Amino acid sequence: MTDSDRSPVTILGLGPMGQALAGAFLRGGHPTTVWNRTAGRADALVARGARRADTAADAIAASPLVIACVIDYDAVHAIVEPAADVLKGRTLVNLTADSPERARRTAAWAAEHGVDYLDGAIMSPTETIGGPAAVILYSGPEDLYREHRPALASLGGAAAYLGPDPGRAAAHDVALLDLFWTSMSGLVHAFALAGAEGVTAAELAPFARGISDLMPAIIDEFAQHIDGGDHPGDASTIVSALASMEHIAHVSHTHGLDTGVIDAARAVARRAVEAGHGGDSFSRLTETLAGPAPVR
Amino acid sequence: MTDSDRSPVTILGLGPMGQALAGAFLRGGHPTTVWNRTAGRADALVARGARRADTAADAIAASPLVIACVIDYDAVHAIVEPAADVLKGRTLVNLTADSPERARRTAAWAAEHGVDYLDGAIMSPTETIGGPAAVILYSGPEDLYREHRPALASLGGAAAYLGPDPGRAAAHDVALLDLFWTSMSGLVHAFALAGAEGVTAAELAPFARGISDLMPAIIDEFAQHIDGGDHPGDASTIVSALASMEHIAHVSHTHGLDTGVIDAARAVARRAVEAGHGGDSFSRLTETLAGPAPVR
Repeated sequence: MTDSDRSPVTILGLGPMGQALAGAFLRGGHPTTVWNRTAGRADALVARGARRADTAADAIAASPLVIACVIDYDAVHAIVEPAADVLKGRTLVNLTADSPERARRTAAWAAEHGVDYLDGAIMSPTETIGGPAAVILYSGPEDLYREHRPALASLGGAAAYLGPDPGRAAAHDVALLDLFWTSMSGLVHAFALAGAEGVTAAELAPFARGISDLMPAIIDEFAQHIDGGDHPGDASTIVSALASMEHIAHVSHTHGLDTGVIDAARAVARRAVEAGHGGDSFSRLTETLAGPAPVR
Repeated sequence: MTDSDRSPVTILGLGPMGQALAGAFLRGGHPTTVWNRTAGRADALVARGARRADTAADAIAASPLVIACVIDYDAVHAIVEPAADVLKGRTLVNLTADSPERARRTAAWAAEHGVDYLDGAIMSPTETIGGPAAVILYSGPEDLYREHRPALASLGGAAAYLGPDPGRAAAHDVALLDLFWTSMSGLVHAFALAGAEGVTAAELAPFARGISDLMPAIIDEFAQHIDGGDHPGDASTIVSALASMEHIAHVSHTHGLDTGVIDAARAVARRAVEAGHGGDSFSRLTETLAGPAPVR
């Protein structure tokens, strides 16, 4: 990181993540201007030295680097379009989570209006921001990323530049959110199922942590299978996964628990088995999810 | 563990896990008798010193401790019921994965036939068996567990005794499999979605590992919420999770990917929001999954 970069920064949006971003820039010694649709959210930051702007246009006018972190890209456009003249010649770093296609559309809007544009995605919780555990992905023009890297270093952690396609950070973001929220859905269901069997969450938790410890090695193994287009079922097969999932659905059903997620998961596995891939690794389902199996 | 226990052990079932169990007992110096419905599976173990039995009854007769690891409890019963007279007075440790109710039924059958019975669940992959990373859960009579613990120590790792209810190991097992297979379903979908956006699996993998690194802290936080019956949405809320899941479903749909799992997951979140819990932590969904919200 750099201690020498103290360039002014503006933060648009003061939800929990926006507040964490502003706090990190303040700690990094940047003159930090903040704006939020409801002004009260700025109080704690103002007490720490932030400047509160009355309008988004005033906030944008205060800094060459403007960070947006709001609910979605509709909200981004609602804020920046009326202030396009002020934003012209400045850099907008959009850390709002939305789809790759919308990131590309916002980049196109920015280009039309003479605004330099980086798209980004924050992959770690608010409490990591400014510290070594922060994970923030960026995509867009590489020279622009390099120019602002010293200032963005105040946000901490493992910033990753993913390439010039402005949709690339959002593409990673949506895939990682997919993994995260599906895993979280499995977690709450596992706790509900354990609870129905009289096992408390505290009792299950150490073993559940053990399950999450298995994932990194599987992620690497599956990545090799998927990129290689070869899914050897040496270690375990879709057929055995399907048997497990049917067992989970059965026990869940016995307890009157919602089985929607596991039913949908096993429908995919069943389709792969019916297509003749039952002896393959579970990684084969990446192809099943993408559509009907090609005729061979 | 103990080096002094060299008691004879019998393994019924030589799938990949049964073979791993037999191999670990052989390494531990136990006279090990093996049996499988198809005899060829024993060859490698026999070469390492195992004794091959021609029938399940012969195998059972060879050892006071008999381990069953087959496809499901129907298969266990098909093997042990005809050999009930031989099994009488011995200990059956059933490491087959099945439901808690069936574990309790098999324990009742064992009690009726004078067979000592422990139910178990293996929570770690075959390659961990015999080493420090093995995780095997046991439930059933505590004195019986203590009696066989020195021999079972040859299987390695963190054996955990969960209490006298014979269904308790299976209850943990099914909940942990639920977490595992739902997470795995999220993983293959994440890889498929990244692939549809031109992001290779190898490119996504390091960030996917980062997502799995987030889970242990969340598991502990959720366990506190769930056991306490209080789900504060300080860090993040069901409403924001639902927005994320709708975004994932939208982008997946754009690429023609199956959206069954994320659709089912967001249906649960939506139900919680409609019941007025949108501002709560995602951990609140454990209650939503269990049935309609109580009238307040």
